[in-house]
Amino acid sequence: MIDQDQQKISHHDNFPDFSTLGFRFMACAADYQEAEVILFGAPWDGTASFRPGSRFGPAAMRLDSLSLETFSPYQNKELVTGKVCDIGDLELPMGGRAPSLAKIRSTVRQILTDGKKPVMIGGEHLVSLPAVTACHLQFPQLCVLHFDAHADLREEYLGETLSHATVMRRIWDELGDGRIWQFGIRSGTVEEFAFARDGHVAMRTFDCGSLADAVSAIGGRPVYLSIDLDVLDPSVFPGTGTPEPGGLSFQTLLDSLLQLSGLQIVAADLVELSPPYDTGGISTAVALKILRELLILI
Amino acid sequence: MIDQDQQKISHHDNFPDFSTLGFRFMACAADYQEAEVILFGAPWDGTASFRPGSRFGPAAMRLDSLSLETFSPYQNKELVTGKVCDIGDLELPMGGRAPSLAKIRSTVRQILTDGKKPVMIGGEHLVSLPAVTACHLQFPQLCVLHFDAHADLREEYLGETLSHATVMRRIWDELGDGRIWQFGIRSGTVEEFAFARDGHVAMRTFDCGSLADAVSAIGGRPVYLSIDLDVLDPSVFPGTGTPEPGGLSFQTLLDSLLQLSGLQIVAADLVELSPPYDTGGISTAVALKILRELLILI
Amino acid sequence: MIDQDQQKISHHDNFPDFSTLGFRFMACAADYQEAEVILFGAPWDGTASFRPGSRFGPAAMRLDSLSLETFSPYQNKELVTGKVCDIGDLELPMGGRAPSLAKIRSTVRQILTDGKKPVMIGGEHLVSLPAVTACHLQFPQLCVLHFDAHADLREEYLGETLSHATVMRRIWDELGDGRIWQFGIRSGTVEEFAFARDGHVAMRTFDCGSLADAVSAIGGRPVYLSIDLDVLDPSVFPGTGTPEPGGLSFQTLLDSLLQLSGLQIVAADLVELSPPYDTGGISTAVALKILRELLILI
Amino acid sequence: MIDQDQQKISHHDNFPDFSTLGFRFMACAADYQEAEVILFGAPWDGTASFRPGSRFGPAAMRLDSLSLETFSPYQNKELVTGKVCDIGDLELPMGGRAPSLAKIRSTVRQILTDGKKPVMIGGEHLVSLPAVTACHLQFPQLCVLHFDAHADLREEYLGETLSHATVMRRIWDELGDGRIWQFGIRSGTVEEFAFARDGHVAMRTFDCGSLADAVSAIGGRPVYLSIDLDVLDPSVFPGTGTPEPGGLSFQTLLDSLLQLSGLQIVAADLVELSPPYDTGGISTAVALKILRELLILI
Amino acid sequence: MIDQDQQKISHHDNFPDFSTLGFRFMACAADYQEAEVILFGAPWDGTASFRPGSRFGPAAMRLDSLSLETFSPYQNKELVTGKVCDIGDLELPMGGRAPSLAKIRSTVRQILTDGKKPVMIGGEHLVSLPAVTACHLQFPQLCVLHFDAHADLREEYLGETLSHATVMRRIWDELGDGRIWQFGIRSGTVEEFAFARDGHVAMRTFDCGSLADAVSAIGGRPVYLSIDLDVLDPSVFPGTGTPEPGGLSFQTLLDSLLQLSGLQIVAADLVELSPPYDTGGISTAVALKILRELLILI
Amino acid sequence: MIDQDQQKISHHDNFPDFSTLGFRFMACAADYQEAEVILFGAPWDGTASFRPGSRFGPAAMRLDSLSLETFSPYQNKELVTGKVCDIGDLELPMGGRAPSLAKIRSTVRQILTDGKKPVMIGGEHLVSLPAVTACHLQFPQLCVLHFDAHADLREEYLGETLSHATVMRRIWDELGDGRIWQFGIRSGTVEEFAFARDGHVAMRTFDCGSLADAVSAIGGRPVYLSIDLDVLDPSVFPGTGTPEPGGLSFQTLLDSLLQLSGLQIVAADLVELSPPYDTGGISTAVALKILRELLILI
Repeated sequence: MIDQDQQKISHHDNFPDFSTLGFRFMACAADYQEAEVILFGAPWDGTASFRPGSRFGPAAMRLDSLSLETFSPYQNKELVTGKVCDIGDLELPMGGRAPSLAKIRSTVRQILTDGKKPVMIGGEHLVSLPAVTACHLQFPQLCVLHFDAHADLREEYLGETLSHATVMRRIWDELGDGRIWQFGIRSGTVEEFAFARDGHVAMRTFDCGSLADAVSAIGGRPVYLSIDLDVLDPSVFPGTGTPEPGGLSFQTLLDSLLQLSGLQIVAADLVELSPPYDTGGISTAVALKILRELLILI
Repeated sequence: MIDQDQQKISHHDNFPDFSTLGFRFMACAADYQEAEVILFGAPWDGTASFRPGSRFGPAAMRLDSLSLETFSPYQNKELVTGKVCDIGDLELPMGGRAPSLAKIRSTVRQILTDGKKPVMIGGEHLVSLPAVTACHLQFPQLCVLHFDAHADLREEYLGETLSHATVMRRIWDELGDGRIWQFGIRSGTVEEFAFARDGHVAMRTFDCGSLADAVSAIGGRPVYLSIDLDVLDPSVFPGTGTPEPGGLSFQTLLDSLLQLSGLQIVAADLVELSPPYDTGGISTAVALKILRELLILI
Repeated sequence: MIDQDQQKISHHDNFPDFSTLGFRFMACAADYQEAEVILFGAPWDGTASFRPGSRFGPAAMRLDSLSLETFSPYQNKELVTGKVCDIGDLELPMGGRAPSLAKIRSTVRQILTDGKKPVMIGGEHLVSLPAVTACHLQFPQLCVLHFDAHADLREEYLGETLSHATVMRRIWDELGDGRIWQFGIRSGTVEEFAFARDGHVAMRTFDCGSLADAVSAIGGRPVYLSIDLDVLDPSVFPGTGTPEPGGLSFQTLLDSLLQLSGLQIVAADLVELSPPYDTGGISTAVALKILRELLILI
Repeated sequence: MIDQDQQKISHHDNFPDFSTLGFRFMACAADYQEAEVILFGAPWDGTASFRPGSRFGPAAMRLDSLSLETFSPYQNKELVTGKVCDIGDLELPMGGRAPSLAKIRSTVRQILTDGKKPVMIGGEHLVSLPAVTACHLQFPQLCVLHFDAHADLREEYLGETLSHATVMRRIWDELGDGRIWQFGIRSGTVEEFAFARDGHVAMRTFDCGSLADAVSAIGGRPVYLSIDLDVLDPSVFPGTGTPEPGGLSFQTLLDSLLQLSGLQIVAADLVELSPPYDTGGISTAVALKILRELLILI
Repeated sequence: MIDQDQQKISHHDNFPDFSTLGFRFMACAADYQEAEVILFGAPWDGTASFRPGSRFGPAAMRLDSLSLETFSPYQNKELVTGKVCDIGDLELPMGGRAPSLAKIRSTVRQILTDGKKPVMIGGEHLVSLPAVTACHLQFPQLCVLHFDAHADLREEYLGETLSHATVMRRIWDELGDGRIWQFGIRSGTVEEFAFARDGHVAMRTFDCGSLADAVSAIGGRPVYLSIDLDVLDPSVFPGTGTPEPGGLSFQTLLDSLLQLSGLQIVAADLVELSPPYDTGGISTAVALKILRELLILI
Repeated sequence: MIDQDQQKISHHDNFPDFSTLGFRFMACAADYQEAEVILFGAPWDGTASFRPGSRFGPAAMRLDSLSLETFSPYQNKELVTGKVCDIGDLELPMGGRAPSLAKIRSTVRQILTDGKKPVMIGGEHLVSLPAVTACHLQFPQLCVLHFDAHADLREEYLGETLSHATVMRRIWDELGDGRIWQFGIRSGTVEEFAFARDGHVAMRTFDCGSLADAVSAIGGRPVYLSIDLDVLDPSVFPGTGTPEPGGLSFQTLLDSLLQLSGLQIVAADLVELSPPYDTGGISTAVALKILRELLILI
C-alpha cells in the first residue's frame, strides 16, 4: 500500500502562507487511501518517430491546471476535492522500453488491487499497452474504446513490434476480436484499414458517428478508455507529434465522452500531448478540460 | 478639448515620401474634432492571474493593421477615412490600479462629453469597469452586452474585489439587475452560475443563441458593448491569457455583431488580446477584422 | 530532356543502409521519364508585402512529408511509387523578378512538352502567373480554378503591376473573360469586387457553394488549378503571410478537391505556405495532405 | 512552526515506483525542521512595466532542475540532501501589491525566527523589499549586496513609489547610507547615477571590479544578497523583462559569488527570470546553476 | 521642405492623458526644422536571399524603445529631446527594387539639403547604396566606415548586380579606391578577399583592431557610417538573416563607436535587424542601445 | 561498394534549370568513389533524458548549409567540390537501440573499408559508440579526442548502461586507459570526476588549456574526434538538449580544432544539435561553420 505521509503536502494549516501551487493537478490532492481515482504521469516517448515531446505532457498539464475551474458547466458538477489523488510521475528511462513498460504495468496493477481507478497521462501511445495488460488481468472481459487519428494497428513499424504505431495491434493480440472500438481514425496503411474491414476491430473513420452502437454493444462489460488527443483536429490541438488534419472538434470529443456515462470505465488514459509543439498553450488547455470532464464522469 | 495639431501627422503633402506607416490604426487618422469615433488603447493587465501580455494588444493591432483591407465584404461597406481618430495609448502604471482606472474613466468621460463614441482596445477585462462607469454617468439607462468565455461575476478573486475575474460583478454593482446580457459563457464557479440563474444577469452559456431576444429586450436603450475576445474558440483565437476550449467560431461572433446593427451602441471595447501568446499572429488578425466590422457598424 | 541519372538517388540496392530520407517528397522519387506528374518547388516570395517566408515552403514540406502516410482513406487509394518525380527547387534570385518568372515559365513549358503534368509548390502567389502563361501556350482553351482568401485582381499594388496582389488580374489579361472561377474570396478592395460583379471572373465569396456549377461549365476544357492555401481559415492554416479569418475548413477544401475528379487538370500549384509562421507545423501538415490528395486525384 | 507532514512527499519507500519528479527543486526535499536553508518562490510581477513573466520563474526552475547535477565542479562539493527544504510558492494576487508584500515579509520573518536562512526565487525585483525589511528587523546591522543591470534607485516610477524600478531606493530608505553595494549597473536616469555619486550607495558600473573592497568593508556584518539576473549579458540570460546589453558573463557572476564565501549571508534572492522570454531554456539553466552554487555556498 | 504639422503629434498639452507611446523612437519627437538629426526607417528586404524579415526592423525598434533609458552611462550624456526627429518609415514596394532605391536616395538628398544628418534604420543592407550615393553628391570626399560580418564585395550574386551581397562593391564603383574601411569581416568568397588584398578597400578581418589607423587616415573628411548589425556575434545578436558565428562582442562594437567621436559623420545607417528571428527581443535591445549611443555621438 | 548512380543527382547538365537545393550539404555532392570524406547523418536520440530533438540535427544542417560560404577565412582555404560525399541519413528506429547502433557500426565499417574517412552528424552522443567501435577494429591504436560539457563517464544512467550519459565509459571499456582526452568538461557526478582523477581518462575541466599536451602525447596514432556541441556556452549554442552554462566560446573551439591539423584524424562526429531548441537558428549556423572547418582540416 502506498505511503500515506506522501499525501500530506496539501495539509499545512499551521503555516497557511505556504502553498503547493504547481505541485499537483488542480483539485487532485486527496489522500491515496480515500481517493477513488489515482492519477499519474507516464512521461515516456521513447518510440516517437517524428516529433518527440509527449514526455513533457504531465508536467505541462500540472502547471497549467492552476488556470482551470473545478466546476463543469457541461455536466453541471464540480470536481470535488477528496476524490482524486495525483501521485506524480513514474521515473522511466527513455532508452529502456522494457523496464518502462514493466513499471507502468505494475503501477496500474497495484492501483487496481487497491480498488481504485487508474487514470494515466502520457507520454506516447505505447504506454497504453502495459496499462491495458494490467487491466485485462483484473478484468478478463475488458473492452477498449480508442479515440485516435491513427489506426495504430501495424504488425510492426521501422522493424519494431512495440511502438506507438503498433500499440492497438498488440492490444488486439492480448484481447482478441470484438473487443476494440476505434473512433476518428483517418490515417494508416492499406493493411491497417484492411485489418479493420476484416472485422478484428470496429473502426469508425473520420468521426464518432457509431458511438451509441458501441456503447450498447459493450453494455456492462468493463472498459478501458484510451484517448489519443491527436484525434482532435490540429487547429484545436496543435501540440502533438503527428498532427493529422481533418479531425474532431472539441465539442464532438466532449459530447462523445458524455455519451459514455453509462459505461463501467475501469481505467483511462490521455496521451500524446506534446508541449514543445503546443505554441500558445491551447492544446494543454484542451487536454486539461477533457481530463476534468473525464474525472467528473468516472 | 483635444489638441488638433496632434492629428496632423497624416498630412504631409509637400513631402510625400515620408509615411506614417505603423503610427495609427489603418484608416483611423481622422481629426479628433471631425471624428465620430475615438479609438484608444488601454494597455494594462495588472490583475492578470495566469498569463499576462494583453498590455501589448493595442501595439500589435496597430502594427498588423497595415495588412487589413478597409473594405468589408460582409457589410459591403468601406471603413471611410475621416470617421475614426486613433488617439494612441493611455500611459498606465502596471502596479497602480487606482490611478490607471481613473485615467480610463476620465478619458471616456471627455470623449463622451465631446459628443463622440469611445472604442477602447485592452488590456485586460478590468479596464471595462471605468469605461462603463463613465458611460453610465452620461447614459443612466445604459445596458451592457458582454461576450466572454468567463462569467467574470465573482464577488472577489484571490482576495481582491477589483480584478478581471470580478469585473462584471462590479458592473452589476453599478447598474443593477436586468441590465447585463452575457453570451458564450463556459467557465466560472458554481456561485457565478447560480448568480446568473437567480436572474441578476441574463447569461447565455456556450453560444449566442438568445441574442435576438436580447436585442429586442434592449430596444432603444443605450448600449455598452464589451467583447472579451476569449469568447472565441482557442483554435480561432489562441493569443489570450486564459484560453477556454469550446468557444465560438469567427463566423458566429461576426454574425452576432451584425445582428446588433439596430442598437444604439454608445461605447465599446475589445479586450484580452495577448500578443506574446499569439504565435503566428492569427489572433491579432481576428481582432483587427472584428474591430473593422465594429467600426463600420457603429 | 531531363538527365535520367539524376533520378537514381533512390536506387541503392547494394548499400541498403544508406537512405535518402528528407531528399524528396514522400513517394515522389519516380524516374523523370516514367513519371506522369512532375513536382517542383518555386521558393520565391519577392513581392510579399506583409510577412515573407513562403520561400521556405517547399523545403518544409519535403522534410515533414516523412510523417505522412501514402494511403488516402478519403479516396481509398495509395499514392503509388513511380507516378510522381520530385525534381527539387528552382534557383530563383529574390531581387530578380523577371528572371525568376522566366525560369518558372520555361520549366513548366518543358514539362508540358515532355507530356507530363507540372505541380508547383510556392512560394508566393505571383509564381502562378508564368505557370499559367506556359500552360496557355500549350492549351489555348485553358480555364483557371482559383481557391484563395484574396481576390488578387488589383490593377496594381504599391506601384507594381506584377505582384501577389495582382496575379489573377494579370492572368485575366492573358485569358480574358469567362475563364476564371474563384472560391472562398473574402478580402479585396471595392474595385476588385466590382471587377468580379462586372462579370470578368466568376467570384464566389466566403465559401465554395457554386463549385458544381463551375465544374459543369468548364466541362472538358483543360484546367489549371491554383490553390492559395490562405483560403483556409487561419485556425486550420496559420502559417501564411496574410491570414484572413473566416475561411474554409480543411474538410470543405478537401471535399471541393474531390469534386474535381471529372475535370481535365493539366497543371496545378499550391502556394503561400510560410513556415516561419507555421508554429507547431500544423499548416505544413495540412499542405502535405492536400498535396497527397491532389497527386492521387490527377 | 511549519507542518512536518508536508515534508514527507519524498518518503515513499513502500511504493517505490511513485516518484515526485517535478514537485520540488532537485535535492531540496529536506524536512523543514532539519533544513538549514528554506527555499520558496515569490511568483509575483505586478509592477513589471515592459514585459511581464517573472511570475513563472519558480515553476520553470523546478521543472528544469531535473537536468542539473547536484555536484559542483567549481566548489568541488555536492548539494547534499537534507540541507535545503523547498516549501513551494507563496500564493500572491497580481493586482494586490500590499497583501503580496505582506505575505512575503511574514514568510521571511518566520523562517528567520525558526533559525533558518531564506532563499527566495522571484518574481520581479520588488519582492526583495519585504524580504530585506524582515531581515533588517532580525539583523539591525544588515548590509545588502546587489547585482543588477539597473540601479533601481528612482524616487518614483510612473507615479508609483513601490515598483521594481524603485526597490533599492526603498531599501535605502530602510537601511540608510553605507549599507548597499551595487555591481554591474549599466542603466538608469541621470538622477540615479547622481544619487550614487553622492555616496548614498556604493555603485560599481558595468562590472564587479570592486567586489573585494566591498567584502572587506562589510566584514562580519550580516548580508542580504540580491541577484537580479539581468545583471548578466542578454546573450547569456535572454529570458528577462528588460534585457540590457553589455552585461556580465556567466563566469564573472559565478566568480563573484565564490568571492563571497567568507561573508555571513543571512538571506538571498534570485529575481527576474522570465520564462516566456527564455527561448530555448538557457536562462533557466543559468539561473539553476547560480542557485546550486549559492545553496552550496551558504 | 517637410510639413511641420506632421511633427505636432507630441504636443497635446490640453489633453494630457493622451499619449503617443509607440508612435516614435524614444526621445526622437523633435520638430523637423529644429532637429539636427533626422531618423527614418527603410523597411525593405527585397533581395534577402536566406531569411527575410529586416523589413520589420524599424517597427520593432520603435515599439521596444519605450524600455530604453535616454541617459548613456558610457558617454555620461543624455539623448536630449529636441535633437532628433523620427519621420517614420518610407513606403517601399518589396518587388520594386528601382523605385525603392530611388525613394531612399531622394529622401536622404532632401535631409542633407535641409542641413541635417540622416540616420536610416534598415531593412537589408542594399538600402545603404542609395543613401551613400546621395551623400556622395553632397560630399565629394565621402569616406565609408563599414562594420559587417560579410564583405558584400561580390560583382554579382544569383545573377543580380544589385543585392545585399554586392552593396559594398557598388559603393566602391561610386567612390573608388581608398575610400572604404571594413571591420569585423569573416565571410565571403575567395574573390572578395582577393579584391580587398588588392588594395581596393581596407578590410579588417574578424575584429576592429585597426580602427585607430582608419580614423587617423580619414582625418577631417566626411564619413558615412554603415553598421550591418550582423557584425556582432550571433550570441549577442541572433535576430538577423545570415548569422555568422565568431563575431564582435557588444562591448567591442560600442568601444569602436566611441572611438569615432572625432570624425565628421554626415550620415549613418543601422541595418539587418530581423525581428522574426529575434527570439526574446535581445537583438532589438542591442540595436536600440547602439542607436542611442550613435545619436548621442553625432 | 556503394551504388554510383545514387551520386548523380548533381549532374543535370542538359536541364540546367533543375536544382538540388537542400538535397545535400553545401559542396558535398562528390561521387562516393572519388570522395575522400563520407558525410552521413545519424538522426537518433532514443536515450535523450531531458529534451530530445537531436534527431532533427542533420536535416536542419542540410537546409541551412545553403547560407554558408565554402571559403574559410580562418584556414584561407576553400571546401573544394569533389572531396566530400553526403550520403544522407541512416534510417534508425527510435525505440530500437540495438539495431540502430548496429547500423551505424556497419556503415562506418564499410566507409573505412572503402578507404575513406567517415564524418557523422548526430543525433545524440550515444551514436559515437558504434562509430568508435568500428574504427577501433580498423585502427587498434585508436585514440579519442572528446569535446563536451558532460563527462559521459557514468557506469549506468537511469538503470541503463547504454545511454548518452555513459557513452565515454563504454568507449573506455573498449579502448582502456590512456586513450581518451576530454576537454571543456563542467558537469558530472562525483564518481565521474573521481574516475578521471584516478587516471583512466585525461579530463580537462572548463576549457581546452591542455590541448597542446594532448596533441603531442597522441603523436602519430590514429584519432577519433568526437565533438558534443554542448561544449560551447549556451549563449553561443542554445540549441541542445542539456545546456550547461560556463562553456567555450566559438573562437576557443575553433582555435582548438585548428590546433589538431598535425594529427591523423581517421573519423569524426558532431553531435547534440537539437533544432527544436535552436530558436533563431544560431546553433545550426555554429554547427555548420565548425563542420566546414573540420571538413577542410581533414
